[in-house]
Amino acid sequence: MSRPRVVALGGGHGLAATLSALRLVSDQITAVVTVADDGGSSGRLREEFDVLPPGDLRMALAALCNDDEWGTTWAAVLQHRFAGEGPLGGHSLGNLLILSLWEHYGDTVRGLDMVGRLLSARGRVLPMAAVPLTIEAVVRGLDPAEPDALSTVRGQASVAKTPGQVASIAVVPQDPPASPEAVQAIDDAEWVVLGPGSWFTSVIPHLLVPELREALVRTRARRLLNLNLELDTSETSGFTAERHLEVLAAHAPGMRLDVVLADPSVVVDEPALRRAAATLGAELVVAKVATAGNPGQHDSLRLAAAYRDIMS
Amino acid sequence: MSRPRVVALGGGHGLAATLSALRLVSDQITAVVTVADDGGSSGRLREEFDVLPPGDLRMALAALCNDDEWGTTWAAVLQHRFAGEGPLGGHSLGNLLILSLWEHYGDTVRGLDMVGRLLSARGRVLPMAAVPLTIEAVVRGLDPAEPDALSTVRGQASVAKTPGQVASIAVVPQDPPASPEAVQAIDDAEWVVLGPGSWFTSVIPHLLVPELREALVRTRARRLLNLNLELDTSETSGFTAERHLEVLAAHAPGMRLDVVLADPSVVVDEPALRRAAATLGAELVVAKVATAGNPGQHDSLRLAAAYRDIMS
Repeated sequence: MSRPRVVALGGGHGLAATLSALRLVSDQITAVVTVADDGGSSGRLREEFDVLPPGDLRMALAALCNDDEWGTTWAAVLQHRFAGEGPLGGHSLGNLLILSLWEHYGDTVRGLDMVGRLLSARGRVLPMAAVPLTIEAVVRGLDPAEPDALSTVRGQASVAKTPGQVASIAVVPQDPPASPEAVQAIDDAEWVVLGPGSWFTSVIPHLLVPELREALVRTRARRLLNLNLELDTSETSGFTAERHLEVLAAHAPGMRLDVVLADPSVVVDEPALRRAAATLGAELVVAKVATAGNPGQHDSLRLAAAYRDIMS
Repeated sequence: MSRPRVVALGGGHGLAATLSALRLVSDQITAVVTVADDGGSSGRLREEFDVLPPGDLRMALAALCNDDEWGTTWAAVLQHRFAGEGPLGGHSLGNLLILSLWEHYGDTVRGLDMVGRLLSARGRVLPMAAVPLTIEAVVRGLDPAEPDALSTVRGQASVAKTPGQVASIAVVPQDPPASPEAVQAIDDAEWVVLGPGSWFTSVIPHLLVPELREALVRTRARRLLNLNLELDTSETSGFTAERHLEVLAAHAPGMRLDVVLADPSVVVDEPALRRAAATLGAELVVAKVATAGNPGQHDSLRLAAAYRDIMS
């Protein structure tokens, strides 16, 4: 099993970081991507066309591009954003290309596969649900005058930058249909990778799609959780590494993990983190995976080395 | 010379019709395309980004696509237009892709060549000028109350549908730089094809770019003029086939032709048309090139047969 079949679940830059590393150790990668984004170019396209938000799907595809001139050029062109404040300003070309392929084929997965062929992508990119989702968070202390009051914040973009502390999240519609290809990929995987990424808006949402959660509980694949390099963000302000594991587990009762991977920079109390991992059935692996000089960013080669060591 | 080197000059649907036929008889095709469009998606992009209008370039590229599944799929996707009245409504994906490649490379021709590679296009597509142009027409009888009064109409979209009769056209800026690759292609060609297309807004504008006009006069290539299937349009109302030749010649003194190709449906007075062609040095070839059942549209296979017979 030197080139394992891997499913990576997530969204945004976190998933792209994982994929950029996984492509060096596997050529059977399936990315399962959040479809709850409502900000930026994706949000505007949802509003204009009522489609799945294509942005995180595009970013995952670009991360899996073949590294020859053809693949890297098209990845760069897909990532290109139009400048200015006009009607096209801020839109990413790749989002518009994905949307065109969806309209051309009338089939989400076929359209994404065609972008994959364009990039000679080393893997497949699938949406986590067949319908666009809206994230709803229960947030504590949104109003500093009432630090214990609970409020509801709607929309991924708003949740990600909420000044309150997220207590729990849900998705609307509540029981969205999963992408069948994603369920199949999890069933067939040798390894499943969760994280890194915005904890409540990119990592946990997959667990709220019932068929995905069931597949994650049921699969014979080994499960790896990759902790973030920045633990203290707007949506996880004050959270320790242990707290990250707790809130994840709270959203997926019954899911066991095999490995929790953490950069040394986020391990403040190693015995406590080891215990929290063990509670979920996982071994803690501490490995330097951050970029030298940019501690908030994963280093593709170091992360690839860690994945290879863990998976072999 | 069974597969001649051909340069086709024009724009819009007329040029696309010529290219769809030429691709069957040549694999050394260069399309030199008008850059004066100011309507529709192209017009909006000129306004938002001050770029060459990409629409006619896109249409020419799509017409040259390889006819396997890959080429035809991407051609269809490039031609895809977003629906609705929103910020993206009416934009063609191919226009946005071309614009992204231009911004990515900072080089018009390199960007177009990359789209050609995507489509495995059977030839190259070049802009006729290196800067966006504006068409200005002198129009007679714009006001029905003063049928002999002359007025100026600005912009390709307005000229193409003017209710007056076009007397002459000019482009602004007046002496635009040609695309050097287009000049070279004309110098190196065995055949040059002009028309079909909107006479004043797609066929004649090339003659107003001094370096292109000089190359057309100078080249050792043989020159074929393909007359339109619909002679009586807004911009050429009441024009006979002979009149089409006259106005073309008036905009390019010194340019000789070798062949004038006409569908029988537009030949009303054959001796007169033969004489008008001879005045320019050309032989008249009458051949059925219209689509059976749609007399306004060229039939690719019939037109290809006519081109092959003429060029061999």
